[in-house]
Parts: sequence; structure tokens; C-alpha cells
Amino acid sequence: MASKIRVFIWNEFVHEREDPKVKAVYPDGIHKALAKNLGTDFDYRFGTVDEPEHGLTDAALAATDVMIWWGHMAHGRVADAAVEKVHARVLDGMGLIVLHSGHHSKLFRKLMGTSGNLRWREDNGKSRLWAIEPSHPIAAGLPQQFVVPHEEMYGERFDVAKPDDVVFISWFEGGEVFRSGMTWTRGLGKVFYFQPGHETYPTYHQKEVIQVIRNAIGWAKYQGATDVMKGAPHAQVPMEPVRSAG
Amino acid sequence: MASKIRVFIWNEFVHEREDPKVKAVYPDGIHKALAKNLGTDFDYRFGTVDEPEHGLTDAALAATDVMIWWGHMAHGRVADAAVEKVHARVLDGMGLIVLHSGHHSKLFRKLMGTSGNLRWREDNGKSRLWAIEPSHPIAAGLPQQFVVPHEEMYGERFDVAKPDDVVFISWFEGGEVFRSGMTWTRGLGKVFYFQPGHETYPTYHQKEVIQVIRNAIGWAKYQGATDVMKGAPHAQVPMEPVRSAG
Amino acid sequence: MASKIRVFIWNEFVHEREDPKVKAVYPDGIHKALAKNLGTDFDYRFGTVDEPEHGLTDAALAATDVMIWWGHMAHGRVADAAVEKVHARVLDGMGLIVLHSGHHSKLFRKLMGTSGNLRWREDNGKSRLWAIEPSHPIAAGLPQQFVVPHEEMYGERFDVAKPDDVVFISWFEGGEVFRSGMTWTRGLGKVFYFQPGHETYPTYHQKEVIQVIRNAIGWAKYQGATDVMKGAPHAQVPMEPVRSAG
Amino acid sequence: MASKIRVFIWNEFVHEREDPKVKAVYPDGIHKALAKNLGTDFDYRFGTVDEPEHGLTDAALAATDVMIWWGHMAHGRVADAAVEKVHARVLDGMGLIVLHSGHHSKLFRKLMGTSGNLRWREDNGKSRLWAIEPSHPIAAGLPQQFVVPHEEMYGERFDVAKPDDVVFISWFEGGEVFRSGMTWTRGLGKVFYFQPGHETYPTYHQKEVIQVIRNAIGWAKYQGATDVMKGAPHAQVPMEPVRSAG
Repeated sequence: MASKIRVFIWNEFVHEREDPKVKAVYPDGIHKALAKNLGTDFDYRFGTVDEPEHGLTDAALAATDVMIWWGHMAHGRVADAAVEKVHARVLDGMGLIVLHSGHHSKLFRKLMGTSGNLRWREDNGKSRLWAIEPSHPIAAGLPQQFVVPHEEMYGERFDVAKPDDVVFISWFEGGEVFRSGMTWTRGLGKVFYFQPGHETYPTYHQKEVIQVIRNAIGWAKYQGATDVMKGAPHAQVPMEPVRSAG
Repeated sequence: MASKIRVFIWNEFVHEREDPKVKAVYPDGIHKALAKNLGTDFDYRFGTVDEPEHGLTDAALAATDVMIWWGHMAHGRVADAAVEKVHARVLDGMGLIVLHSGHHSKLFRKLMGTSGNLRWREDNGKSRLWAIEPSHPIAAGLPQQFVVPHEEMYGERFDVAKPDDVVFISWFEGGEVFRSGMTWTRGLGKVFYFQPGHETYPTYHQKEVIQVIRNAIGWAKYQGATDVMKGAPHAQVPMEPVRSAG
Repeated sequence: MASKIRVFIWNEFVHEREDPKVKAVYPDGIHKALAKNLGTDFDYRFGTVDEPEHGLTDAALAATDVMIWWGHMAHGRVADAAVEKVHARVLDGMGLIVLHSGHHSKLFRKLMGTSGNLRWREDNGKSRLWAIEPSHPIAAGLPQQFVVPHEEMYGERFDVAKPDDVVFISWFEGGEVFRSGMTWTRGLGKVFYFQPGHETYPTYHQKEVIQVIRNAIGWAKYQGATDVMKGAPHAQVPMEPVRSAG
Repeated sequence: MASKIRVFIWNEFVHEREDPKVKAVYPDGIHKALAKNLGTDFDYRFGTVDEPEHGLTDAALAATDVMIWWGHMAHGRVADAAVEKVHARVLDGMGLIVLHSGHHSKLFRKLMGTSGNLRWREDNGKSRLWAIEPSHPIAAGLPQQFVVPHEEMYGERFDVAKPDDVVFISWFEGGEVFRSGMTWTRGLGKVFYFQPGHETYPTYHQKEVIQVIRNAIGWAKYQGATDVMKGAPHAQVPMEPVRSAG
């Protein structure tokens, strides 16, 4: 029997403790709500910004198949050394799902090589997510489009590296569009960004949103080769004779 | 009349001063040899690692359309602040051409979000560069394939972000292959990596290699929109009424 | 002095002759309106479905740098042999700009390898085109977004091959999104699809729309290598000795 | 329990009957050899060019998850109607693995929108396949590179549409390179092209080659959404009020 995918849900966990409005939506934090809603198919581990090493210990990272990242107001409080470690694990094959305001996290920007900038507005309005790549595993079980009734608007231009796949494009009532679900490969790791999830709305209690994240976990888990290049190897002995060296 | 493209050739300029063998090939430095061989169609500016700010002043960067980057043993001596500035200028639309061992520069790795690792061997052997995307402007004037008679071997897997285009793939006599010419977009900036150019071989005196770099300069110069998003704008007033906010 | 780009505007030219409403908007046909609005920077040639060979003679194709294609109700009347010829010219390096309902032309579907299907509605409503890849030459001179006040809705999922670049994404008032400006490479030829241009609206009299098409002409003109592989060559004599053949 | 993936191996089956040299390698045909070597994890069905409808009946296609296609001298004998049907099934979500000389099949060219041309030589020499995208599921269980000791040379430029992923690049002893394993998406279907498999060499008896094809079957099976757009739907009633229609 296949063992459960080991999911590390990292959430800065600040809004939920400081803002009663957010606490009302996610009393135990976004991380715990995600785990509860994603269900029992995965093994969970958690980390938050105020823990030692933000909970991102070597042991925890080594035992993680897929990490979920939610951050916003505390991006700057995440230590550079921790970002380096998580980044290295992504290159080493750990899957990563970056949610909502994580677009401005040090980690995501380091993976993209770009600013992660976008246009935004907290208007509490409606968005529609269109599954434009229905054959992608992340779209499994989803309708052709679904509504998130109240969300923060995120609009283009989203300054990211060119994605491998654009799985979702969002329509916002105020006139904007947004590539709201995109994938990249970095090193051996698969990365998925997903837009919904402002802290003041019950977005992570919506079944379509949870289905997307659940699918993304399965997709992001490493399924490739085990014999992979390590470091920058000096291939001292050529495989074929180099006669031209002269 | 169109003004000349302003090219900033940055070269760490260490090997050429310290190693007589390199000095014999590039007596005035790789940067000066490149400028001489690229000819008078461009306006040049230069920078090296030992200058104040490595020559990467705000004024110089602001007056640059396309930067060429050659570095190797002094990657670690390039100040992080300088890397941040050049990176920001790429996102702002400055073209960038990274040559040979620049694959391990802080700048290139920051743009890629990956390690930039590859397999290597100084075997002085032959490589063949195949133009697999002949319609790309960077391939203009080039033959279907050409030989670089003596080069350092760089082999896959090259740990880079997925390229926009693979323009060249190299065959190495020792049995390796390498995506030796690739393009990316980062922010508003176009980036081209090109493999040939080990300091001990006269590679930058070879006409096909120079033609590739010349083409890349023309291609990398910004030709896009001038009305572009700045920062992460708060689009406070929606363009269309948001009735669902309720 | 560079000679003018030779542009062949192909328009089936049926609606404009049969439907007074369309004739009122484009009395001389969409092709003539396009040429007039694109201005005198290009050399024009025209073809329509009712001409011999639809005007797509060998001589005309050989003398074309970039073709623009508008078709709708007469897709089925375009002879397969003509489609083969135009397709072959694209592979040979002719640029191609497919407009609006051309998404269902035999030519575009042959280039894509897909159905070209999409969701649609003639609601005469508003759309907003967002330039999500501002550094692309096709976005030069365009604002970050612009409105086409009345257009036919085209919505995702648009069944096309994965594009090289998504330059524009459209927002439609009715809730849909659409990748309204996309590029591909086929053989040596560059292909651009652009959504606006329903025959009953004066879309091709709008300056931003014309600017996009003008940019696309410059972009689509072949700028690559002249030494290119012809056919499927039998490389009888290897460049390097094949010792393993045994 | 998950049911077995239903694999349809289509092989023109001409060389093996007409050429004793080929018959010696594949006495029951390439299709039967593939099935035997791929093992019992899959349910197989077969078709050959001389069967009625080439074995490509509606019922057989409807019951197929992934098709493997090998063809060479009989490309022209495959009826256009059969090609249309298989193409339609790919757009509808059937996976497709095109082997070796299938690059010139009507089916593959229709999916690509290009000529499928390449450079070739029957030199019986050695090739090395480098897994340049080790994180791809198709690379699972494979070494960083492996040798096919005797194969027909296929070299760039391979005239295909831009791939989603280049999983393998081959080195040929005679000096050529080739993107020997590439993926595309067409409609809902996943497509993989894999270069090895000339009829006169025992390539499909080599374990690494079989491992690649086995992996590709698992990868190509549809895993996406079930609620997908059918045809080109007239979305007559907008989801949001279209007030601008006026």
C-alpha cells in the first residue's frame, strides 16, 4: 500500500491571532483549517512564523513531500536562512504550493526570479475561476468554472516567470483578469501558485478551492528519476574518447 | 536615425591579469575583446570586479540597454547589493546576455531561481552547436551547425528554469549534450545564456560565436510597451461596478 | 533602406457583400479597411474567397512576408489545396496573423493540431484586453489594458496548442475570460491569433486594435537564419567517425 | 482496485513480414514484442495496417486509454478517415505515444501542425539518451543517461511544434543531437514522441527503452477534469449581466 503523502502546511499565523475578524473565520489558523478540510488522505505537519526556526527544521523538511505556504504580513520576519533551506528542498524535489498572498513571500520570489508584483484591491467581490487546462491533474473533479463569492481582487500583470501551465484564469467583477493557478518546475521540484485565500473570507472552506489544493498535492509530489545529478559534477573521464583535444 | 544600442560588457577580469595563458588570448580582457569583435554598431561601457561598485553604478545601469556578463572565479566577490541592482534593472527591461561560466553567477541564479549547476570537464575538445530554432532572431546569419574546435565541456543536466526558447543544443565529443543557447523573460527583461567562452580558448575570436552574441544584443533590447505596471498597485477604484461586495 | 514588409490580407469577403449591416461598417470589405487603417508602412496584396484560387496563387504567396487571415461563414469553401499551400508557406517562414473567427478556419486548425473550439455569444458587450506580456513587441505602444466597447464574446476553453506567449487576456462583461492574443511558431513561421473583429462592429477602426495588428506584422516577419534544413535530409556521411557501427 | 490501463498498440506490421532481417528481431511484429516486454500491468489491444479499418474501429478507440503508434513505409496507406478518428480521440483525452519513424505519420503531423522532418542516417551507430528533465514521470527509474548501442541516427532540426517538455536529448556518435523524448498536449490528450526503435535493431528489447514507454503510458492516461467543454458552445445566457450591450 502506498504510504500517505507527507504535507507540511506552513502558515505565518499572525492575522488569525491578532484580528478578531480573521479569527472568526479560522479560529485555529489557516493551516489547521486547511488540514481539516483536506481530510485524512495526507499526513500533516505544521509550522508558523513564531516557532523556533519557524518550524522549518532540517528534520521536518527532510520528512516532507509537499509543502503548502501561506504568508502575508510577516514575510519580512521569515529568516533568510530558512528561505534558503526550503528553496534547496524544492530544488531537491519537494513539491510546493504557494497560496494567495504568498506571491510576495521571499520564497516564491526566489523561485521565480521576479518581483511577484500584481494589482490588488480588497473589494470583497466575486471572482470566477476558469479551468483553461482541463486535462491537467490539478483540474480533476472541478467544473469548467466556479465562483468564489467574496475575495480580494488580484489582477494582471502578475510578474512571474513564464509558467509551465496556466491551469486557471480568473475573472473579477471589477474588470480584471488573473492567471490564478499556474505551475513551474524548479530543479526537481514542482511548484503551484493558487490565488484564492484572503484571510478575511472563508475561502478555504469552499469545496472547489479545497479540491484544487488536494489535486495539487498529488501532482506536486515527486514522481521522477532517483538517479539524478548532484551538485556540479566534474566529469573528469569522458564517456567517449576526445580526440580533438590535441 | 535609430541611436546605437548601449551595451554594458561586465567582465570580472581576473583570469586575464593573473594567468599568462589567458592573458595571451585576451590581453586587454574578455570585455575589450568582445567589444572589438562585436564592432562599431553598438555603444560600449565596461565594468570589472575590482572597480568601485564593480562599475555597476546607478548611472551606468540606467544608461544600459543590454548587459553582457562574464564571471567565473570572482562570483563570490560581487556584492549582493550590486546583484540586486542589476537584477532590478533586468526586471525593468534591460536585456542580459550571460556567457559561459556566468551560469554560476549570483545574478543568473537569482534570475533562474535554480542552482545553475551542470556537468563539466576542461578537456579542450570539440563541440558542435546546432541551431535548433532557426527562425529565432538569435540564429540569423548562422549555419545549421558550427564547430567550436576547443572548449570546456558543459553537459546536462543544466539546472535552469524552463526556457522560453532553446536556440542551440551542443554536441560534445566526450558524449555529452548541452542546451547551449537559451532564452527567458524575467519581468520586462529578456535574458540569453550562451555556453561558449572558456577563458583559455580563443572562442570570442570566432566569427560564429560573435555573430550569436551580436544577434542576441539586438534581440535583448527592450521593444515592448512603455505603459507598464509599476510596483504592486492598489487599484482602489474598480473599472467596473463590484455589485457582489454587498 | 529597408524595403516595406509585404502584407497579404486575405478576407473571405462575404458578410460585407451580403449583409447591409456589415456593409455599413466595412463598405469595401474588412481587408480594405485593415489596409487603410494600418497605413502606408506596408505593401499590400489582397485575396478573397471568390477569386480564382481564392487569390492564393503561388506567385502571390512567394511574394508575401506576412499574411493576415479573416474568415467565418466561408471556411468550408476554401479549397484544401489552397490551405496546404498557405500552410507550407508558413512552415517556410511566412508570418501569419489569424483574426477573430479565423480560429475555425481550416488553416488555423491545421497549424494548431486542435479543434480551435471556444465558447461564444453575440452579445454586443464590452471586453477589456489586458496586456499581460508587456515586454512582447506586439504590446508596443499599447496601454496596460484597453476596452473594445462592443464585441462578440469569445470565452475559454479555447482549444489551441500551448502558445509560445500569451500577450493578451480578455475580460468579458458576461463573466468570461479569453486568451485573446497568442503566438506560436510552426516550422520557420510565426503565428499570431488575435480575437477582436466581429464583422458587425467597427472594431478594425479602433486604434488600439490596429496598433496590435501593426505590431504583429513587424514581429511575424521572418528574421531568422537563411541556412535552414530543407526536407528530411539523408545525412549519409557523418561529421564524426561512427566507430560503434561494427 | 484501479483497473488496468487499456493500451492499444498500433503497428503497421509490414517490415516484419517482408524483410527477414526484421523478422529475425521481431518475429511476431513490433506490437507483440512491445506488449510482451511491457508486461502484464496493462490490457492490450492491437491493430495493423492490413486489417479492416486498420483495426482502428470506433469500438476499439472508445475502449483505449493510451495508444502507441509505430509506422514507417505504410504511412501513406493509412486512410485519412482513420487518422481523423484517432486524432479526434486524442483531442478527447486518449493518450498517444508515437515511436521512431512515426514522426512522419499523418497522425503525428496532424497533431503537430508541422512537417515532422528531421535529418537521418542508417549508420547502425551508438546513441546516448540524456534525461534532461529528471523530475518528469517519464524519467522515473531511468539513469541520468543510457546508451542505445545501435540505432538509426535522427538529428535536428526536428520540425515539431514547441514541446511542453523535452525529457530526453540524444547524442549521436556522428556529431548530431536530437530531442529524442518530447511531450505535447493536444485538446485533452497527452502526446509523447520517443525516438528509438528502428526495425532492424533490437531496441524494443532494451530495458531502458521499455521503461520509458512504460512510464509514458502511465503519464499519458487522462487524469484531468470530467466536466469539459464540448464542441463550440453557444453560451447564450451570460453568467453576469451585460449592461454595455446597449
